Amino acid sequence: MRIAYQGEPGAFGEAAARLFEPRWEPVAFRTFDDVFEGVERGPVHYGIVPIENSVGGSIHRNYDLLVAHHVPIVGEVELPVVHELLAPPGATIDGLRRVYSHPQALAQCERFLGTLKGVEIVATYNTAGSAKQVAEEGHADAAAIASARAGELYGLVRLASGIQDYDDNVTRFLVIGRRPLARGVPDKTTIVFSLANEPGALFKALSAFALRGIDLTKLESRPLPGQPWQYLFYADVGAARDDLACGRALAQLAESAPTLRTLGSYPRWRAAESR
Amino acid sequence: MRIAYQGEPGAFGEAAARLFEPRWEPVAFRTFDDVFEGVERGPVHYGIVPIENSVGGSIHRNYDLLVAHHVPIVGEVELPVVHELLAPPGATIDGLRRVYSHPQALAQCERFLGTLKGVEIVATYNTAGSAKQVAEEGHADAAAIASARAGELYGLVRLASGIQDYDDNVTRFLVIGRRPLARGVPDKTTIVFSLANEPGALFKALSAFALRGIDLTKLESRPLPGQPWQYLFYADVGAARDDLACGRALAQLAESAPTLRTLGSYPRWRAAESR
Repeated sequence: MRIAYQGEPGAFGEAAARLFEPRWEPVAFRTFDDVFEGVERGPVHYGIVPIENSVGGSIHRNYDLLVAHHVPIVGEVELPVVHELLAPPGATIDGLRRVYSHPQALAQCERFLGTLKGVEIVATYNTAGSAKQVAEEGHADAAAIASARAGELYGLVRLASGIQDYDDNVTRFLVIGRRPLARGVPDKTTIVFSLANEPGALFKALSAFALRGIDLTKLESRPLPGQPWQYLFYADVGAARDDLACGRALAQLAESAPTLRTLGSYPRWRAAESR
Repeated sequence: MRIAYQGEPGAFGEAAARLFEPRWEPVAFRTFDDVFEGVERGPVHYGIVPIENSVGGSIHRNYDLLVAHHVPIVGEVELPVVHELLAPPGATIDGLRRVYSHPQALAQCERFLGTLKGVEIVATYNTAGSAKQVAEEGHADAAAIASARAGELYGLVRLASGIQDYDDNVTRFLVIGRRPLARGVPDKTTIVFSLANEPGALFKALSAFALRGIDLTKLESRPLPGQPWQYLFYADVGAARDDLACGRALAQLAESAPTLRTLGSYPRWRAAESR
């Protein structure tokens, strides 16, 4: 099986793909849109995209893409994130003038970056891609923030290690695919819905789950572009779609929500799970 | 009165300050942290910071700063956002190699930026600051995304106008200050709270308002750094803190929420309001 991730070899997406299923072949795609399209059109069987980081919060772009495309979520995986400051051999921290990385990585290393003076911070499309670029250009005044593996792949040295603001930095990735996986039993469902513009609408929506004792593990709102202060709500429901109570809760929600869509029902990730 | 905004003259924050109160003097500060500190320590009376854009979503950094500092919200204002592609005289779109702007502005112009080929997108700390920098350097291959006013201030020409993805692009700003304003009657309250880690906790929290017919106009979750998958919730409540029902709702919420804080109670912005 081939699984698409965004970025270059050495990206955290590649590491998440290997953690999820070591026997699959990770394939690099340039953008998150490309990952979704690759799965939708078929050159790859599955895709993996980050959805939430424990420090930076949600990766909104991928919430938007889950709605724009019709590829269900089939699994999830949590990857501990350790950032390194990587530069060509001979570079020093004091000599740096530019640091490249993905905006999420830059946000997760805010405190460290604040200690660098006179350095331009440049947002790029991928952490590992920044490492590759810094290696190819070979300037001693440029560094990238990326994984240790990216540093090894592209022959860079570590100017600083573990530079993320919080040690407990975890990114949750979603696995998307046209077919459900033959492993695990779904016990989590991700839905997206809109609300009638009336007081108590969100409370009414949540009541469908709360009154049946079904937990929501995550609730996220995203603006409806072009409709100021109207939102789409994304919720992770702690039950399978096929569960009787969950099915009834979704039916109740559908009575009042102008739109409701299930984005996937899949097994919850358990770090210590045995295969 | 002096009101602090983040960025350089020509920034959207400056425009929002003038829209909120034309008689006050806007003062430029480098970072959002500096704005909060300026108000807290006293060199300025008030500050203004963006909290939400109708396309890009919440400005999470400022939610975090509202918690980190102890300066109440005293008002809000909504500013329509129009982005321009600005460059030194003589520049052309085809000749561009770099485009500078704030990450939120870049995100709001994603579609337009996708049409530029071979151009490096550089994230900066402020839209108007990018315009200033592009003007000072004077390279014909560099442009900034900023307001028309920033272009006029720094002598740049417009290569493209209204390049935001959605025409209906509005940013909501919060006004913070140590003293309440003598205008308007508070009818909106912003709170932040955490939840016990048990099923139905959010439903229970919202019930305090819903059962009293009090609307929530916005609900936002932010990760608790260092505590993966635990959240702080920010809510905009459609009533004054001093309102009897609202006071009782807040008291009920405090019974179950491990933490609860009111960030401000202030008059809702009404675009057509007469002064």
